[in-house]
Amino acid sequence: MQKRREIFRELLSKDNVMILTHKSPDGDTLGTAFALCRVYALQGKKAAVVCSDRIPVSYRFLTEGKIMLEADFSPDCIVSVDVADAKLLGDSFSGYADRIDYGIDHHPSNTGYAKKTIVDSAASSAGELLFDLLKEAEIPFDRQTAVCLYTAVTSDTGCFKFANVTPHTHQVAAELLQYGFEAEPINRRLFDISSLEQLKIEADVISRIESYRNPAVTVATLPFSLLENAGEDLEFGALSSIPRRIEGTVIGISMREYEKDAVKVSLRSMDDRIDVSAIAAVFGGGGHKRASGCVFLCPLEEAKKRLLDEVFRHYDRVFGGRE
Amino acid sequence: MQKRREIFRELLSKDNVMILTHKSPDGDTLGTAFALCRVYALQGKKAAVVCSDRIPVSYRFLTEGKIMLEADFSPDCIVSVDVADAKLLGDSFSGYADRIDYGIDHHPSNTGYAKKTIVDSAASSAGELLFDLLKEAEIPFDRQTAVCLYTAVTSDTGCFKFANVTPHTHQVAAELLQYGFEAEPINRRLFDISSLEQLKIEADVISRIESYRNPAVTVATLPFSLLENAGEDLEFGALSSIPRRIEGTVIGISMREYEKDAVKVSLRSMDDRIDVSAIAAVFGGGGHKRASGCVFLCPLEEAKKRLLDEVFRHYDRVFGGRE
Repeated sequence: MQKRREIFRELLSKDNVMILTHKSPDGDTLGTAFALCRVYALQGKKAAVVCSDRIPVSYRFLTEGKIMLEADFSPDCIVSVDVADAKLLGDSFSGYADRIDYGIDHHPSNTGYAKKTIVDSAASSAGELLFDLLKEAEIPFDRQTAVCLYTAVTSDTGCFKFANVTPHTHQVAAELLQYGFEAEPINRRLFDISSLEQLKIEADVISRIESYRNPAVTVATLPFSLLENAGEDLEFGALSSIPRRIEGTVIGISMREYEKDAVKVSLRSMDDRIDVSAIAAVFGGGGHKRASGCVFLCPLEEAKKRLLDEVFRHYDRVFGGRE
Repeated sequence: MQKRREIFRELLSKDNVMILTHKSPDGDTLGTAFALCRVYALQGKKAAVVCSDRIPVSYRFLTEGKIMLEADFSPDCIVSVDVADAKLLGDSFSGYADRIDYGIDHHPSNTGYAKKTIVDSAASSAGELLFDLLKEAEIPFDRQTAVCLYTAVTSDTGCFKFANVTPHTHQVAAELLQYGFEAEPINRRLFDISSLEQLKIEADVISRIESYRNPAVTVATLPFSLLENAGEDLEFGALSSIPRRIEGTVIGISMREYEKDAVKVSLRSMDDRIDVSAIAAVFGGGGHKRASGCVFLCPLEEAKKRLLDEVFRHYDRVFGGRE
């Protein structure tokens, strides 16, 4: 089997390269893609990053403000970064699914759809993996590349906050910061700044949070009426994480009425004894023990009542009834 | 002049050591103090951490749940950590001001009140400095010490988010994580978890945010009526940072009516051309160009009107009048 260093050197020897990111792009797929694109450019080669979806506001500094990314040339080589499954390329690039030459990824679930794949599931992020590959292959890069790689790493680790951070992740950050760019404005943009509209919707969700079982069961709801007139830059990730942020939450529930009488539910368990995938399964959903989801096709209030009945049944079985 | 390594070795040779933190304690002063305390204990010496104020909920894991910290022995040696000025010891320890043997600090403004002081203003945190001192002096320490040092560093850098983070800060984090503890629960507790009460008050503040000059001037207000019945664990840091989190904010203002008809104002400028200390000075306050404050002794609405008149005058002078 070809060593990853050799695959990477081969990949870098190509010209006219199209770099594919995953749909609903985040900072890791975009930062890694732009870092790789920059490395090609530094070697006088042609490369372009493409993505099937709109670029979220917080990452547009990577794309120099561009909202959509499309290549205006026919590639001789196609590389995907941070894409675990060809399905995740999104509709507009699904045609490329069996034409991908190289995949660079850190997801253990990578399906191996590319002709040659480099996967390292110990890496916090595709950005950390690309940094390692560049270092192993002794490829020099510049400050702008370091900015893109740092953005990838900080973005997939929640600014070094998540459990995927290893000592090596911090070593990579240390080496990247030595390129002399300012990381603080990047982190501010990714993690602190929101539109007033986004913050007001979050505030509205928080003001209507309901707590049960004193206060182990936390429910956040987002009715369709709030979303109907919302701007298209609204990000839902922050909204669904609200219940987990509340002290004492054991089961965190967020319910978003994404269309009238259609409710998407996300369930999170903070305790190994509560398996939320079993709750989701009752309503035709699924997922993992600690994170699962399901959908209700009924009004929000009705969905909440049906879901909570089931949640209380599970909770009370484990924790011994009403407190 | 005695080298810092020698001062540090001398300090570590003492027994019966009282370690003082600063008032309104944060994770850096507490984490560094408990790390040092642990190092003494590992060497079979007696040491205790003391603090003049209540320990905030998020740091009580460091103190094993203790809310107040007092030494129950008479010390032979007193060390302060992360305390720039003896005034910051707080009222109950002001009597120790001229009895402090050693100071370990990273504030360039350290007044040199201790008999011997080790200051390193390049360190992100007192925790980073203590790590360096332990390493220089080749003092081994254990996992629990590493947990305390990591807490100090992550806490003073906003989880590696602020401008005080250097490549060395990440190297220190990498070495500390090698002790094998889980950092994610620490960061979750410090940065993600809030009481529902805290979140609901933040949500209330956000729902009443006012934006002017489309939307460069952002005003968040916290009326006394909201605080009157609030629990004593409420933290105001998060509240005063809200205006700065809003996209487009150039002048971020937060106004907290801390007593009836008494309003504390915090002003932040996100643009070098706006000097908010000049605005604060008009009302008898002061501070820095980018961060200043003042107090109004009048109802909140009246204070807001008077302040905004002045803010608009400054803003319009720089940015050319109403947009």
